Amino acid sequence: MSGPAPVSSSASLKIGIVGFGTFGQFLALAMIKQGHSLRATSRTDYSQLCADLGITFFSDVAAFLGAENDVILLCTSILSLSQVLKSMPFHSLKKPALFVDVLSVKEHARDTLLQVLPEDSDVLCTHPMFGPESGKDGWRDLNFMYERVRVRDEKTCSSFLKIFEIEGCRMLEMSCTEHDELAAKSQFITHAIGRILSDMDIKSTPIDTKSFEALVQLRKNMECDSFDLFSGLYIHNRFAKQELKNLEFAFEKLKHKLPKRNDEEQEVNQECMVKNSR
Amino acid sequence: MSGPAPVSSSASLKIGIVGFGTFGQFLALAMIKQGHSLRATSRTDYSQLCADLGITFFSDVAAFLGAENDVILLCTSILSLSQVLKSMPFHSLKKPALFVDVLSVKEHARDTLLQVLPEDSDVLCTHPMFGPESGKDGWRDLNFMYERVRVRDEKTCSSFLKIFEIEGCRMLEMSCTEHDELAAKSQFITHAIGRILSDMDIKSTPIDTKSFEALVQLRKNMECDSFDLFSGLYIHNRFAKQELKNLEFAFEKLKHKLPKRNDEEQEVNQECMVKNSR
Ligand SMILES: NC(=O)c1ccc[n+]([C@@H]2O[C@H](COP(=O)([O-])OP(=O)(O)OC[C@H]3O[C@@H](n4cnc5c(N)ncnc54)[C@H](OP(=O)(O)O)[C@@H]3O)[C@@H](O)[C@H]2O)c1
Ligand SMILES: NC(=O)c1ccc[n+]([C@@H]2O[C@H](COP(=O)([O-])OP(=O)(O)OC[C@H]3O[C@@H](n4cnc5c(N)ncnc54)[C@H](OP(=O)(O)O)[C@@H]3O)[C@@H](O)[C@H]2O)c1
Repeated sequence: MSGPAPVSSSASLKIGIVGFGTFGQFLALAMIKQGHSLRATSRTDYSQLCADLGITFFSDVAAFLGAENDVILLCTSILSLSQVLKSMPFHSLKKPALFVDVLSVKEHARDTLLQVLPEDSDVLCTHPMFGPESGKDGWRDLNFMYERVRVRDEKTCSSFLKIFEIEGCRMLEMSCTEHDELAAKSQFITHAIGRILSDMDIKSTPIDTKSFEALVQLRKNMECDSFDLFSGLYIHNRFAKQELKNLEFAFEKLKHKLPKRNDEEQEVNQECMVKNSR
Repeated sequence: MSGPAPVSSSASLKIGIVGFGTFGQFLALAMIKQGHSLRATSRTDYSQLCADLGITFFSDVAAFLGAENDVILLCTSILSLSQVLKSMPFHSLKKPALFVDVLSVKEHARDTLLQVLPEDSDVLCTHPMFGPESGKDGWRDLNFMYERVRVRDEKTCSSFLKIFEIEGCRMLEMSCTEHDELAAKSQFITHAIGRILSDMDIKSTPIDTKSFEALVQLRKNMECDSFDLFSGLYIHNRFAKQELKNLEFAFEKLKHKLPKRNDEEQEVNQECMVKNSR
């Protein structure tokens, strides 16, 4: 009677995380808070951190796969996904699981998962459009993209998606291809500009305009992200190359539209004089 | 007893605006609201608009100068300031006035004003670090930079500055040189990136990240601004050229740090094959 009913808590899932770096840890915290049972495996040894968080850490991937996970959540870097998946002993799985990836590129993730995973495993491709910086005060109204690539166990899949619904994300079902096309024009360009600003070492000044403040914030947001992530966005999104060219082209156009400065005219004149005096 | 006393209204000033374009009009609205008496002159005929606003419009610059303005507020474009000032018949002034400029470059404005104005006129160089878009909901906490370049009539000068204090601006007294150095690293770079994004025609998507939303907003903010303004920032701020080079250098570095994509490797391989087969 008084507004929409609150989203109820989802059934408790056993979620195994592969790749317990920045983003894997960030997602894990919300899942623990919601009462799910977490386990993790990673290239690096996170056993101490996991013990502190109440997560079982497996150095042995076969033992990890044998731990009856309902969901296996792939949080490795874009560049390493294929290699990580190909080295996994899937015969150790005791039952089919829902494999979910959170990579920032989606066609590549979808293709790799379909190619490598056992046929009886379900596949859900997702991209939470936020990170440790933009999502630090909660995930309300932040975008969550997903495609049900191969889902037969609807119950597990919707329980998993509910994790993000409960946090208030805007749930967007769309194809991996549509995602990559849009993300190249938006997220990839944002990362490129963030990296450029970071390299230029831009800093807040006493006379900031509002728009410059936004750029300083952008730089800060990108600083949490690894260069691997940016490389991955470029290499494994087939639409990114064209966008980088568009960025370069727009920059060239801008430079040529600028009128000559007095000192540049002098430089040109001096060059001419040098040539003429030869 | 209950919080700080409100800043009292400043004495009513007769303010003559030179250059009644976007920014001149934007400033005029706040000044009218505060009860000052406004007059204007401009290259374009704004007599109808001025009549609607209760402002006296002068097509004749001599008559404008003879109208006993306390303050003459220069709101022309950066590129036209020198030409506009040099064509003014200052002998028509009936009393010395406080000349204030609001140009986004300050050394150039200061030098031009000191070179051209009658010696008995006072000079205040200012830069309100906001515009019609960022200041549309009021000027509270927005930065206002100024340098008292040649001020003898303290009363008129502080009455004028009070206009911005009353609106809640952060008042920053600093030299024109310091301003230009900081603004090249901040505002100029912001405008360059805004123009590039605008040329690329970036747009909101269903899967925007928070950082990309900020870039879309930046593009929108810049769209109000003329290309003359951007050119002016480049030509008449001696620190801007280096910053444009830094931007270009950072972009080049980024491109070279990116690993080769598969299709680029193929392009390279094909080139090699073509060469070898010759
Ligand atoms: N950061 C974000 O805001 C964000 C947002 C949405 C989606 N994502 C996606 O989430 C994933 C993880 O991102 P991230 O921010 O944590 O940083 P990242 O640098 O993209 O990935 C780091 C993770 O990849 C693992 N890894 C890297 N190289 C490896 C290799 N050669 N072999 C095995 N594992 C390797 C790391 O393992 P160790 O820690 O064990 O070394 C770590 O768990 C990426 O696919 C990214 O696209 C990130
Ligand atoms: N826009 C902002 O957010 C902002 C913020 C702070 C400071 N400023 C400064 O405010 C000043 C005005 O900026 P703006 O945004 O209004 O746009 P602008 O394009 O920089 O300047 C437009 C003004 O310059 C006049 N003008 C241009 N060329 C002229 C010429 N050849 N002869 C005579 N007058 C000429 C125009 O006169 P007509 O209209 O009569 O044609 C108009 O009043 C600039 O110096 C700018 O740096 C702007």
